[in-house]
Amino acid sequence: MLRVGVNGYGTIGKRVADAVRAQPDMEVAGVAKTRPNFEAQGAVREGYPLYAAIDERVDRFEEAGVPIDGTVDELIDDSDVVVDATPSGIGAENRPLYESHDTPALFQGGEDADVADVSFTARANYADATGADAVRVVSCNTTGLARILAPLDETYGVEKARVTLVRRGGDPSQTGRGPINDILPNPTTIPSHHGPDVQTVLDVPIDTAGFKVPATLMHVHSVNVTLESDATGDDVRELFADENRLFLVDPDAGIDGAGKLKEYAMDRGRPRADLWENCIWSESITVEDRDLYLFQGIHQESDVVPENVDAVRAVAGVADADESMATTDEALGIGL
Amino acid sequence: MLRVGVNGYGTIGKRVADAVRAQPDMEVAGVAKTRPNFEAQGAVREGYPLYAAIDERVDRFEEAGVPIDGTVDELIDDSDVVVDATPSGIGAENRPLYESHDTPALFQGGEDADVADVSFTARANYADATGADAVRVVSCNTTGLARILAPLDETYGVEKARVTLVRRGGDPSQTGRGPINDILPNPTTIPSHHGPDVQTVLDVPIDTAGFKVPATLMHVHSVNVTLESDATGDDVRELFADENRLFLVDPDAGIDGAGKLKEYAMDRGRPRADLWENCIWSESITVEDRDLYLFQGIHQESDVVPENVDAVRAVAGVADADESMATTDEALGIGL
Amino acid sequence: MLRVGVNGYGTIGKRVADAVRAQPDMEVAGVAKTRPNFEAQGAVREGYPLYAAIDERVDRFEEAGVPIDGTVDELIDDSDVVVDATPSGIGAENRPLYESHDTPALFQGGEDADVADVSFTARANYADATGADAVRVVSCNTTGLARILAPLDETYGVEKARVTLVRRGGDPSQTGRGPINDILPNPTTIPSHHGPDVQTVLDVPIDTAGFKVPATLMHVHSVNVTLESDATGDDVRELFADENRLFLVDPDAGIDGAGKLKEYAMDRGRPRADLWENCIWSESITVEDRDLYLFQGIHQESDVVPENVDAVRAVAGVADADESMATTDEALGIGL
Amino acid sequence: MLRVGVNGYGTIGKRVADAVRAQPDMEVAGVAKTRPNFEAQGAVREGYPLYAAIDERVDRFEEAGVPIDGTVDELIDDSDVVVDATPSGIGAENRPLYESHDTPALFQGGEDADVADVSFTARANYADATGADAVRVVSCNTTGLARILAPLDETYGVEKARVTLVRRGGDPSQTGRGPINDILPNPTTIPSHHGPDVQTVLDVPIDTAGFKVPATLMHVHSVNVTLESDATGDDVRELFADENRLFLVDPDAGIDGAGKLKEYAMDRGRPRADLWENCIWSESITVEDRDLYLFQGIHQESDVVPENVDAVRAVAGVADADESMATTDEALGIGL
Repeated sequence: MLRVGVNGYGTIGKRVADAVRAQPDMEVAGVAKTRPNFEAQGAVREGYPLYAAIDERVDRFEEAGVPIDGTVDELIDDSDVVVDATPSGIGAENRPLYESHDTPALFQGGEDADVADVSFTARANYADATGADAVRVVSCNTTGLARILAPLDETYGVEKARVTLVRRGGDPSQTGRGPINDILPNPTTIPSHHGPDVQTVLDVPIDTAGFKVPATLMHVHSVNVTLESDATGDDVRELFADENRLFLVDPDAGIDGAGKLKEYAMDRGRPRADLWENCIWSESITVEDRDLYLFQGIHQESDVVPENVDAVRAVAGVADADESMATTDEALGIGL
Repeated sequence: MLRVGVNGYGTIGKRVADAVRAQPDMEVAGVAKTRPNFEAQGAVREGYPLYAAIDERVDRFEEAGVPIDGTVDELIDDSDVVVDATPSGIGAENRPLYESHDTPALFQGGEDADVADVSFTARANYADATGADAVRVVSCNTTGLARILAPLDETYGVEKARVTLVRRGGDPSQTGRGPINDILPNPTTIPSHHGPDVQTVLDVPIDTAGFKVPATLMHVHSVNVTLESDATGDDVRELFADENRLFLVDPDAGIDGAGKLKEYAMDRGRPRADLWENCIWSESITVEDRDLYLFQGIHQESDVVPENVDAVRAVAGVADADESMATTDEALGIGL
Repeated sequence: MLRVGVNGYGTIGKRVADAVRAQPDMEVAGVAKTRPNFEAQGAVREGYPLYAAIDERVDRFEEAGVPIDGTVDELIDDSDVVVDATPSGIGAENRPLYESHDTPALFQGGEDADVADVSFTARANYADATGADAVRVVSCNTTGLARILAPLDETYGVEKARVTLVRRGGDPSQTGRGPINDILPNPTTIPSHHGPDVQTVLDVPIDTAGFKVPATLMHVHSVNVTLESDATGDDVRELFADENRLFLVDPDAGIDGAGKLKEYAMDRGRPRADLWENCIWSESITVEDRDLYLFQGIHQESDVVPENVDAVRAVAGVADADESMATTDEALGIGL
Repeated sequence: MLRVGVNGYGTIGKRVADAVRAQPDMEVAGVAKTRPNFEAQGAVREGYPLYAAIDERVDRFEEAGVPIDGTVDELIDDSDVVVDATPSGIGAENRPLYESHDTPALFQGGEDADVADVSFTARANYADATGADAVRVVSCNTTGLARILAPLDETYGVEKARVTLVRRGGDPSQTGRGPINDILPNPTTIPSHHGPDVQTVLDVPIDTAGFKVPATLMHVHSVNVTLESDATGDDVRELFADENRLFLVDPDAGIDGAGKLKEYAMDRGRPRADLWENCIWSESITVEDRDLYLFQGIHQESDVVPENVDAVRAVAGVADADESMATTDEALGIGL
């Protein structure tokens, strides 16, 4: 059993912990948290060994009546792999810590690419992470783009991808984030950084433009891909149907946006209403000449979770891409 | 086993069906739906017998490949009690249908009070519904108010309650509802209808004023109750702690609004992140002279669900209030 | 002086009336309104002759103490040109009315293209409307696209335009419109109708995809145009700087979205904070190979207002495109 | 002529400058700004002498091509009174600066009450500020409450006021502020600080509870006042009709919230669509026993603007309350 430590038990960290626990070949060594809030209380309730992420704050956990098992150093020592799920920028600060313990570490996509030796998404470049000491699992948006561009590139060739990303302003519980009533070109320059980020895991020509809007549930992408060879909409639908992490939304289902997608996830009994798959509106898939168009929803809180699980196996060298993805998907119930 | 039919399988109906299924003394006779959308597909997936709510639309289900078991008439015939969970106003139109089958029916709080012989909330007036042919389970907001006013009135007496209800504009998947960026006095007259609605289940003096705002997760109430006798904040907290459908939000939990409450529900593994309990910010409970103040969040999609289950038992005359509420809460896991 | 009647005195109608009043060669014959609300009161305050748009409702105006000058028939009789600014779909119903009075009429872009003999936007096809009996001024989004595509096509040739339109869900005072918290692919098919609508006024290859989001201030477009010949970003900026209805947003201004654009309009003392110009983020203008990218904000309430004024002149045959646009812009103060 | 300097040329500062300019007995000595953004460019366009608020940033203005007249020290020297309209907390830091120049200063309500010798709102306690060196003009919400409580207290006596404030999360151009989709009890304790803040200008018993919601246009208050003597709704409407800074919204106008109020302000040609008056829904005014209820909208960006103008006169000792308020209102066009 691979012992996996999770440093940072927030939106991503708690999901990764639960996903690791569900795997047949992994167990949760423990989780580290900076504050004794309701999420820390939840870690205790779940039975995860809880560690203080900051030594000086041990007292605050005790005062709040939240029992801890030690500090993050001990967790790292006790882990075969550490998943760093701390807020953007903190991961880079933590890297020396993991190195000092000689524990391989995964970082999240909020970090700059140079935080790690390799950027990773299972579908596009699993093998690159084999045996690496530091791996960056790319962001939710990048993951979502790589998952469709990889099969398109393999099958038809990608002459040029142009994507407009309409991004949610914050997660449902991030009450301090805006905008409240605006549509923000973000950044105001084009192309945005999302295209180059895709290129850290997949070699395709891509230009991206980003918005930030007052919504919390999912990002939604307007995708255009000029293919190198001919295809029809049905060809692309068939290609995508074979990909287990792509979910083609049925036109009869009456799902008009992110709200109903989440409702659907709730109806399916998904934990935390998570949508680990890209949610592609089937009827939006259109090809005019060699110009493919589609809309996809990306659940920012969960689509990288299976990728983190796969990255653990890649780093540990215990499975190849197909084996790992199949195991992960089977354990979590991925594939709508 | 009480056989319960659910007419309307949307936000409330699907939750009531799942809650009925979880009871030791009930089973779902079937559910009726007007359209073969993702929720209808979900009913089939859950194994609930599915009936077409509108005879003429049987074909549409067939065309969409959603198998049905018959039309709503057959469902009503086959049920001991029907829960009408159709949109506001449709319930009243359906009443003659239930009467013609001589099947006792529950209506929802969106209907006018005169849709039924008695309005109902388990904590305030369970016994009134015993043996009734038609019972109206009051709305989410009214239920939430009755749950706190009943124990306050019993223990301290309520001289006057004054409540401002800040209501969500629509549910998360109701994409056609607004406002997008406004704070609407709604209605623009005071008092609003919410006070009189409380008085259909509990005899207390109450004035209410309502707003509608651009949020989807929960209603939140600003409550003032002038008590008839002295109490302290701690007294009230203790009183509420004894009520299983009141959840006192721990100040250490760091929960600042509806978003984090829902996040907490997800972390607890609640189905659909439901919060069947009133969520009362413990630190908001304050008494100045005999003026009690508090904030509570009311999850509009789920707080009436246990009330519907109790109303089934009340109508069927199979349990008294305490027995029913205990059974319901045990079966669903209510009580945070 | 051209006497212009305005049927419908809401968001568009009241702006058109004010714009007509500001012209040296036009006057407002009167405005028609269906209800005696604050806008009708405003028409009286402004001194516009007020007509009841629906004969049967004359009484309601009297009861509300809002004096009227007659019914819409009289207004049409008394007008050289009528601008129909009624809600989408009503314009088509009104067409026979205008025909029966033999009064040339302008319709808005919410109507289907076949409501009129010609669709119109001043920059692209002014001359087509000369002497027409019925002209449709295209929608805010179509107008905004035609204004940039016309000069690009003239100068560089447009090989293909691909535009993602992120549309506001409703206007600031449309409290009944959503979504509250969602990003809706709208329509869920691609291409959307916006591309063909552009082609009613300009012959360019264009594919469009649309979203609806919870914002009220402006639409914002993510534009990609593959040009037929080489250009640099600076070339395009220069081209646009010559167009009076294109406003290049200064990177130093610190304007990050629609909120600050409206703030800027307020600071400029614009009536109703209107932005008649396309608001193009200067720093977003980028050319890679022959792929031009840019972001532009389109003020849905006002960008068609100068177009309506120009269409009046086109229909009346009193000025050519350049003369009319110059007069309109001078009178309104267009050109930031 | 009183020479008034304005330190901080943002939401409040630019409005105060324009309001000062409109007065017959005042002139704008100049305005100070920290950054050369579009608002600084606007100050230049308006012809206000522009000063750098931070000495070290003089260069940045030059680089951006925004000409400045000096630094804030010179502005203070050249002013009879300075209005500090800097962000919350900065005012307190600036106080020694004004003292060192011996220039009387006005602070805004975002500062703690102890920033100044006296807190001020014209209707409640104008005279207290006469000749003071430092005066704090209370916040928009406090101003709005004092304006109704002062006449109620004078005429009927206020036994107890209980107010729920539903506050906008941020101003229209504050894109970094949330929440996006939540209703936040804010603070989560009751009473909030708003009641004590009212008591800095008016001696009445008051408890307040606050929310923050995803809206940008106005705050809206749900007000309950237990009066000491009998009154009817019509009595209160009459009382308020005599107050020039209270606007009673006509039930026939069809104004359902902040969006339509702002629309109305635009239709009236108000600069920046400002609503300097409390906007009280006339039909919401209800008295049950001695319990008065009402809803009022408070435009956070502008209601304190006339108060700042009055405070200048109070500090300078050039007019009494009635004279000053009449002059201010006449100059600005206050009184809907």
